[in-house]
Amino acid sequence: MEFDFEEIDALINARSLAIIGASGKPLKFGSLSTATQLAYGFTGPVYLVNPNETEIMGQKAYPDLKSLPEVPELVYITIPAHRSMEVLKDCAAIGVKGVIILASGFREIGEEGKALEEEALRLAREGGFRIIGPNCFGVYNPRNRLTLLPGHDFSTTPGNTAFISQSGGFSAHVGRLGKDLGIDFSAIISYGNGADLDESDFLLYFARDPQTEFIAGYLEGAKDGRRFFNALREAASRKTVVLWKVGKSEPSRRAVVSHTGSLAGSSLIWEAVLRQCGVIETSGVEETCDVLLALKHLGRKPGRRLLLSGGGGGLGTYAADLAEEAGLEVPALAGDSLGRMHGILNQAGAVAGNPLDIGTPLIPLPLFEAATRVAAANPTTDILVFDMALNFAHGLGGEEGLNLAVDTILLAKRESGKPVVMVLYSRTEGVEDLAFEEMLRRMRWKLLQGGVPVYPSMDRAIRAISLVNT
Amino acid sequence: MEFDFEEIDALINARSLAIIGASGKPLKFGSLSTATQLAYGFTGPVYLVNPNETEIMGQKAYPDLKSLPEVPELVYITIPAHRSMEVLKDCAAIGVKGVIILASGFREIGEEGKALEEEALRLAREGGFRIIGPNCFGVYNPRNRLTLLPGHDFSTTPGNTAFISQSGGFSAHVGRLGKDLGIDFSAIISYGNGADLDESDFLLYFARDPQTEFIAGYLEGAKDGRRFFNALREAASRKTVVLWKVGKSEPSRRAVVSHTGSLAGSSLIWEAVLRQCGVIETSGVEETCDVLLALKHLGRKPGRRLLLSGGGGGLGTYAADLAEEAGLEVPALAGDSLGRMHGILNQAGAVAGNPLDIGTPLIPLPLFEAATRVAAANPTTDILVFDMALNFAHGLGGEEGLNLAVDTILLAKRESGKPVVMVLYSRTEGVEDLAFEEMLRRMRWKLLQGGVPVYPSMDRAIRAISLVNT
Repeated sequence: MEFDFEEIDALINARSLAIIGASGKPLKFGSLSTATQLAYGFTGPVYLVNPNETEIMGQKAYPDLKSLPEVPELVYITIPAHRSMEVLKDCAAIGVKGVIILASGFREIGEEGKALEEEALRLAREGGFRIIGPNCFGVYNPRNRLTLLPGHDFSTTPGNTAFISQSGGFSAHVGRLGKDLGIDFSAIISYGNGADLDESDFLLYFARDPQTEFIAGYLEGAKDGRRFFNALREAASRKTVVLWKVGKSEPSRRAVVSHTGSLAGSSLIWEAVLRQCGVIETSGVEETCDVLLALKHLGRKPGRRLLLSGGGGGLGTYAADLAEEAGLEVPALAGDSLGRMHGILNQAGAVAGNPLDIGTPLIPLPLFEAATRVAAANPTTDILVFDMALNFAHGLGGEEGLNLAVDTILLAKRESGKPVVMVLYSRTEGVEDLAFEEMLRRMRWKLLQGGVPVYPSMDRAIRAISLVNT
Repeated sequence: MEFDFEEIDALINARSLAIIGASGKPLKFGSLSTATQLAYGFTGPVYLVNPNETEIMGQKAYPDLKSLPEVPELVYITIPAHRSMEVLKDCAAIGVKGVIILASGFREIGEEGKALEEEALRLAREGGFRIIGPNCFGVYNPRNRLTLLPGHDFSTTPGNTAFISQSGGFSAHVGRLGKDLGIDFSAIISYGNGADLDESDFLLYFARDPQTEFIAGYLEGAKDGRRFFNALREAASRKTVVLWKVGKSEPSRRAVVSHTGSLAGSSLIWEAVLRQCGVIETSGVEETCDVLLALKHLGRKPGRRLLLSGGGGGLGTYAADLAEEAGLEVPALAGDSLGRMHGILNQAGAVAGNPLDIGTPLIPLPLFEAATRVAAANPTTDILVFDMALNFAHGLGGEEGLNLAVDTILLAKRESGKPVVMVLYSRTEGVEDLAFEEMLRRMRWKLLQGGVPVYPSMDRAIRAISLVNT
């Protein structure tokens, strides 16, 4: 079917919602969705529909769609596959425009499910409504406070990143991690089998959506190869596109068929298409979020020349290896930077250069500040990368000292206008060491708020910087 | 110099210790070392030496080595480089056999430092003692409760893993992480410049040490290429050797020279040597510890055929891709396993196969147990890999339910005798979500105690399994 921006826009930004199969019984999807959505606080009316209940979680329950006081703009169906067809007929009868089907048991289970999915699609075409799903969570949209994803505590701040996913689990994982990393979304769409609206529609939608700057996605396959290629090319010409494509191996392709009934396609063709369109290719939730975080704070193609700074010589040698392997550069200090750095770092154990070894335990803060300022001003530096183990903190007088070091780094970023990346970690992971973890999370949030992306290890930081440079 | 097992053994297992430059003043290495060592509880006498003090941290201080009531078996020198020479002369005078020099400012800073290092070596040869360092932390050995590494709370349980490192920072990081992952060490040796005892000596030592089964190391270079190759070949023929070699790129080689004055050598030659000797090559603290954890619980070459089990179809497709890329296999269920699995997992959303999608939210525990038992018994499975997001826990009735799921997995491991690997993670990383982190750490420790290595992400688990299969 032809791409239609307005139809998708109306569905995602729906102003009223009905949940079919809403329930107060624990451990059912209908209950989980209802509780989640009520907690997150949809901006319009939420109608709970269940013929066996009169009240659910303190709200009136309706027996069916036809009993509602208005036609809801979005209907979320949480009941099993075979029982969904009657609801779709009701949707057509009352003039609903947008439907999301959560249940699995469609195309991905074989012939019987395929027939059901085709029936759903036929009802949608005849009834004039669009479907997201089946076999999906649906939509998270902070603008109308809609979360059909299990995300009652997802961020309520709208942002410029869209994530589309055939996997419900990964969509929830990205949404939750995004919140803790300060990655704000225009929307997340878990669309499962994509029987009607699919990856091509969502790519085209977010390509045109003025609030979306970065489009990321988890893909198992494309329903229509040619249409997808055109959509991807258009999306990637307007926005930065980040894709995590699975189904490269035989067992994975087997799993893709069982999961969303998709055809994964040849991995060689996929790689060529993604490269040709200038897509950033990632693998895994962590790497995808790492890249989104780098895009937010560094932008696309921020430059390849790194200044690596850490306390301890091993860190620099390792980081330099990683950088060069990833196609980044670690150029020597240029101009008068080297001379000035030597003047500041003249104690044993510190090494003026790039990588920069500021010594360990951390040098006095005024020296650290002076060295950081010289590093930031160095003409051959595009990005400053700092490595900091929290367990330094005792040498700095605990969290207070660490806070001052972070302030110094944020100041250097503001003064130089150059992007800064931080590798921040604790060396302790024991049950008894949660105070370190808490300190780490506070420090990370402060850096993120200051525009500095934070990574838990040097290899993840280097990889993210390398990927946003493609 | 010729390799001498007894000399190194005496040094590492010293029964008395003198700390030169011991101090009560904060932020000095002498103070840090003293406090750390006193807290960790060395099994023999610790003599604190400082001519300017009479008492340090409640203990008697001695003005110099000659004033001690006995000749210490190990002397730890924490004072600056140029002042260390007088101490070395005293060591020779009273017949000390083992010395560790912490200070930097030797070969790695250029000509002046090189002369000092040569002088130290000459004094050692004339005086008949051996040196670890300079520019290092020294030794951690739980058997005699020696930790010159900053590790007052390191594990006190001796184990079968040795770690040798030119970087002090990484040696401390591995020791600390090892504790939290239940990796127990025979010893960790941070040897810095390796002026006297070097990588070749330590490889030969741990090759012969009956308590060491796995030898891991962080290397910047090898002092004597031919000697190193022979030592490595011998060590790798007797034990499993894991090496993290840096200095592959030009800026990294530059950093290596400034750090420990080593020559990194051609990375092509290194790769060939490591491959020829059957060494497992790693990169980074995390990957090195990941491999040590896998070696502890799976051993070397545990088999390449994985059974991947998780809740959610995306997980399996992704994991299967990772496995195949890493040279592992994800074979279909064989024999009657597929039929039996179909009989157990017949609900929508679950997929009987490999990857195995047990559905989400987690199926009832009796079904999970039955499915896990079938998976463990499947004849084409060498290793079971479970993926579990903690945030499932609310569907399981919180930590109690999760505990029962973990019990089920441990039971399947015991019954089948097959190794199990767990990918365990929380989707939340916020400051307010520390309760999840605490639950995760408790659950991880329980699994580790049960013989199951735990990884924070599927890619790290797959990588570790792949590496121990080389």
